[in-house]
Amino acid sequence: MSTGPIRLSPAAHTALRPATAARITGGFWAARRRVNAEVSLPQGPDRLERAGNLANLRAAAGAAPAESGFRGDFPFQDSDVHKWLEAASWQLADGGEGPAAKELSRQVERLAGMVAAAQAEDGYLQTHYQLGPDARRWTEPHWGHELYCAGHLLQAAVAHHRATGREELLEVAVRCADLVDATFGPGKDETVCGHPEIETALVELYRETGERRYLDLARYFVDRRGQGSLGDGPEDRSAGPRPGAAYWQDHVRLREATAVAGHAVRQLYLLAGAADVAAETGDAELRDALVRLWEDMAATKTHLTGGVGSRHELESFGDAYELPPDRAYAETCAAVAAVHFGWRMALLTGDARYSDLVERTLFNGFASGVSLDGERWLYVNPLQVRQDGASGQATAGDQSTHRTPWFRCACCPPNVMRLLASLPHYMASGDAGGLQLHQYASGSYEAGGGAVRVGTGYPWEGRIAVVVDRAPRDADWTLSLRIPHWAAAYEATVGGEPVAERAENGWLRLRRRWRPGETVVLSLPLDARLTRPDPRVDAVRGCAAIERGPLVYCLEQPDQPAGLRLDDIALAPGAALGAEHRPELLGGVTVITSRALRRTAPRDGWWPYRDGGEGTGGDTGGAETAARVPVTAIPYYAWANRERGAMRVWIPV
Amino acid sequence: MSTGPIRLSPAAHTALRPATAARITGGFWAARRRVNAEVSLPQGPDRLERAGNLANLRAAAGAAPAESGFRGDFPFQDSDVHKWLEAASWQLADGGEGPAAKELSRQVERLAGMVAAAQAEDGYLQTHYQLGPDARRWTEPHWGHELYCAGHLLQAAVAHHRATGREELLEVAVRCADLVDATFGPGKDETVCGHPEIETALVELYRETGERRYLDLARYFVDRRGQGSLGDGPEDRSAGPRPGAAYWQDHVRLREATAVAGHAVRQLYLLAGAADVAAETGDAELRDALVRLWEDMAATKTHLTGGVGSRHELESFGDAYELPPDRAYAETCAAVAAVHFGWRMALLTGDARYSDLVERTLFNGFASGVSLDGERWLYVNPLQVRQDGASGQATAGDQSTHRTPWFRCACCPPNVMRLLASLPHYMASGDAGGLQLHQYASGSYEAGGGAVRVGTGYPWEGRIAVVVDRAPRDADWTLSLRIPHWAAAYEATVGGEPVAERAENGWLRLRRRWRPGETVVLSLPLDARLTRPDPRVDAVRGCAAIERGPLVYCLEQPDQPAGLRLDDIALAPGAALGAEHRPELLGGVTVITSRALRRTAPRDGWWPYRDGGEGTGGDTGGAETAARVPVTAIPYYAWANRERGAMRVWIPV
Repeated sequence: MSTGPIRLSPAAHTALRPATAARITGGFWAARRRVNAEVSLPQGPDRLERAGNLANLRAAAGAAPAESGFRGDFPFQDSDVHKWLEAASWQLADGGEGPAAKELSRQVERLAGMVAAAQAEDGYLQTHYQLGPDARRWTEPHWGHELYCAGHLLQAAVAHHRATGREELLEVAVRCADLVDATFGPGKDETVCGHPEIETALVELYRETGERRYLDLARYFVDRRGQGSLGDGPEDRSAGPRPGAAYWQDHVRLREATAVAGHAVRQLYLLAGAADVAAETGDAELRDALVRLWEDMAATKTHLTGGVGSRHELESFGDAYELPPDRAYAETCAAVAAVHFGWRMALLTGDARYSDLVERTLFNGFASGVSLDGERWLYVNPLQVRQDGASGQATAGDQSTHRTPWFRCACCPPNVMRLLASLPHYMASGDAGGLQLHQYASGSYEAGGGAVRVGTGYPWEGRIAVVVDRAPRDADWTLSLRIPHWAAAYEATVGGEPVAERAENGWLRLRRRWRPGETVVLSLPLDARLTRPDPRVDAVRGCAAIERGPLVYCLEQPDQPAGLRLDDIALAPGAALGAEHRPELLGGVTVITSRALRRTAPRDGWWPYRDGGEGTGGDTGGAETAARVPVTAIPYYAWANRERGAMRVWIPV
Repeated sequence: MSTGPIRLSPAAHTALRPATAARITGGFWAARRRVNAEVSLPQGPDRLERAGNLANLRAAAGAAPAESGFRGDFPFQDSDVHKWLEAASWQLADGGEGPAAKELSRQVERLAGMVAAAQAEDGYLQTHYQLGPDARRWTEPHWGHELYCAGHLLQAAVAHHRATGREELLEVAVRCADLVDATFGPGKDETVCGHPEIETALVELYRETGERRYLDLARYFVDRRGQGSLGDGPEDRSAGPRPGAAYWQDHVRLREATAVAGHAVRQLYLLAGAADVAAETGDAELRDALVRLWEDMAATKTHLTGGVGSRHELESFGDAYELPPDRAYAETCAAVAAVHFGWRMALLTGDARYSDLVERTLFNGFASGVSLDGERWLYVNPLQVRQDGASGQATAGDQSTHRTPWFRCACCPPNVMRLLASLPHYMASGDAGGLQLHQYASGSYEAGGGAVRVGTGYPWEGRIAVVVDRAPRDADWTLSLRIPHWAAAYEATVGGEPVAERAENGWLRLRRRWRPGETVVLSLPLDARLTRPDPRVDAVRGCAAIERGPLVYCLEQPDQPAGLRLDDIALAPGAALGAEHRPELLGGVTVITSRALRRTAPRDGWWPYRDGGEGTGGDTGGAETAARVPVTAIPYYAWANRERGAMRVWIPV
């Protein structure tokens, strides 16, 4: 039985099924996951204590005086606890017997007990409303986040049950889900929650319990959206604009939508839930809508790092091709949500492109969300910070471009924790005929009736060795390797012999009668490369970005010559890009070096626009440009781990 | 006596002094001002009635039941009335005897009477607090806008007094100012108001009444800012970030500031007030700080249209060179404030560059704020609207890119009205030796002991005839003509003979013994031109804008061939720019025509980034680019007056 975050029901209609077992044992992600297990997750309970989340649970349980009222700035504080519980549960599922694992298990049971104790008699559980006037329950669908919190409770309980086999938290979730089911639906309360999350959670609870009502309710919520139960939102007297129906995806029915819109995390949680519904019901119309919306997102609203959400305003998607590097919101939670959605689409359709984008998001816009030491976080993940902006004057609070130990709105840290803790299950899948490797991390994976071991120094090295440990003895079996879209020049061997097959639509499918222990070696080309944007991406026209393998690179101030202003340089046409692995730097990274042009002209008077007929020098400053300077790029995920300074991914050419 | 918005005290320390009389009699601005006088201003009282502003005044006066409470979403609703009163007063000062002028005068006295009646015994006047719990007065400096409203009351009263000679409203203002003076200051309440405005208003009241206390209090407020009396602002439970001290310019003392920051309108109102203080006190340190801050704004934070405020978030300035065309906030009020600040700097220093930027702002980012028919408004003035964005889905409410009859936050419309109504006084100035023409509009101007008449078809035509009607008989006198920075190829004659003088630092100074009736003809070159951004302006790299004279042009959907997507075109290198005056279009405009390249490639798969070594086509799409299409550009100020559609100022080259 899988302990991963998705366990399809036996009747599910998907092209692929999750791995039945998955372990990451070494390399890049193992290191990131070790920090998650040893630093981030153990710090969680203390952070939640300091932020008041646990006090709320104690007060709701009557174990502490409730007079002080609800603590925290947001009604969804409980969900931080639920998400930590989910994350820690996935970590427990990963095994480990040492004192650290025992202590984590102890903390999980302690917090799970606090959650259970806080639940009301009728199954209700949201301390914000339990500690406030009771009558307000279910009356604030726009901002109350009640079904959102319930959803995270369900997900935590499912993870806890799969990881530990214990029933207590699952029983809490079932009581809560039954209350939700009794409260919402046709002829009952017909509003939807301002923040999706309950949809995917209900499907997971259906998978865990077999209770069909939960799946039906999830489908109801998906289809009810876009029928105006939320509308533009309540009038308020704040200076801000009303969010509008698109903010919570109530402007159009999902089946009819042609573009992702509104609050990015809301949109993507909804799409993940809809993908779960489509998987379990075989609803082809819904699946087609999801494919259409994913394409709209990927082709017109995704930053090079995989980050989504172009606007600080309302944490929202922008227009097609509105992808500003400096004001990119690219919330860490949106990256997590994009991975959730993308992986579900990969299972649903079997298409490689979904995992291609998942890989990009994981290595870049997701991994940047947590510091290398696992103790500090980014809520927003821009692709550029100017010299000015590095001072932090302009961006304060959660949206700072400096890492913070915890946030006032602390949705992102436990979201990173739960994805890292469950990451092995995003690596491989299976079907009736074989096993598919979507991502490459040293480890062991079982799916499709077989088992493989992967050994690789990826993403620093391009060689990926896959040993087939188990496969059907008397039948052909297909090992499918995803070929990233930048890796057209890959090479592959089986038992040292080049394979005759070529990749199609992103999959190199090796169909054979396999001998146990037979080794496939895939070599992906890791030359550093320059990447250009579509001409419609206005904000980075005339620029290129450095990439190597799945990694997006950036220039960060600390690696450049003293006094070099990042805003003054341009890539030299034809300049070589050199790669050098530096094990002592930032936990060990391969840096890319080049020589750039440095503009020597200072500010030109008081007006930054000038007559620009032909032959006036163009964008790189033309005649102004003189000196060449060495520049060093680091992987984007590793930025903001040293002193404050400017950073940029897109560089003028 | 001048009836313009600035009347320096006799002791003021400025290089130039405002004109003593000024009339605009024809041409571009006369047409815009006629619409203001005949449509916008007369509609004002009805708009204010519908929005509840006048009901608030009646309720505060006890003439209507107050039970219904304060109407409107913002505590500063009164200021809309004050600003309309100021605007209408400047319009009355412009003369006119017809029934329309009589009706406007009647409405002014009606609303002035309502304001007077609403004032409390002790001089207090802000209906938001008068209709709410009285005890809250002066306790909410961050968001209460009490001194802001008081400031607009003072400005209205000064305008009313100068225009009509009547004392009633001035007495209201004096009572209010005396209450403010008794309440605020060293050893009294030492906070400043979250929104500057009182500073410039107190100086104007000082000028009108001679009461020195008002000037001293203005200087106190200017210097008190940056000492932490506001700080980061109060904690709130909303999802938004706390604005931070820079939002209301409390992060640094103005004298020490090196960069404009925070909320753009707040920053610029403060700078205008500080310029008034510097003018009246001769404070050189303050003046130097103002020069420094203007340079920072102009050189690094101003859009081509003169619009300022790069971020929707907090309506704020961004970092240096953060100038996105699509998400430019460029609030109409910020354009008004930039003109107020710039004109004061022109008087203070005598430098031409301030009026150069004022001209740009007036013709572009300011004039765009009101529709051609004077009935609908823009709050934000972006330089690009994409095909998607034109649908209006993403931007709702006041920040819509579609014109609106009035706003929930209706600061902008009466601000446009008051600047248009007082515009003649921004055209010319005088000093001991002569008269300076800063802007070119047909009309008559008296300053510096002389009088001139201007006749011109500017900005459509470059010929400007200036007749010297009066000048000292027995002494040299200098007529100074501002030469815009784009007009290096200007020509000038006196009495038909080319002049020997050349412009220096933006001024062509013609020092002569003048005969009455002598005519100067200045010819400014009006060839359409392409303008390029500084290479540091990331957001429009690789683009050019079309300009002609002081006008910035844009491509708007309705003028293009059917089916042409604006996001798919690029300017053809070397393509000719043709100019054609079309009197029937948009009230009569000169359009610029060219042939552009049209990208024929559709969306290229699901990923908008591709390998970009050399020779892959670059930014215009390379081999994808094929067809040439005719495109037509209109002046930016005239956009958004027809059906909804895409628009862009910056076009890829």
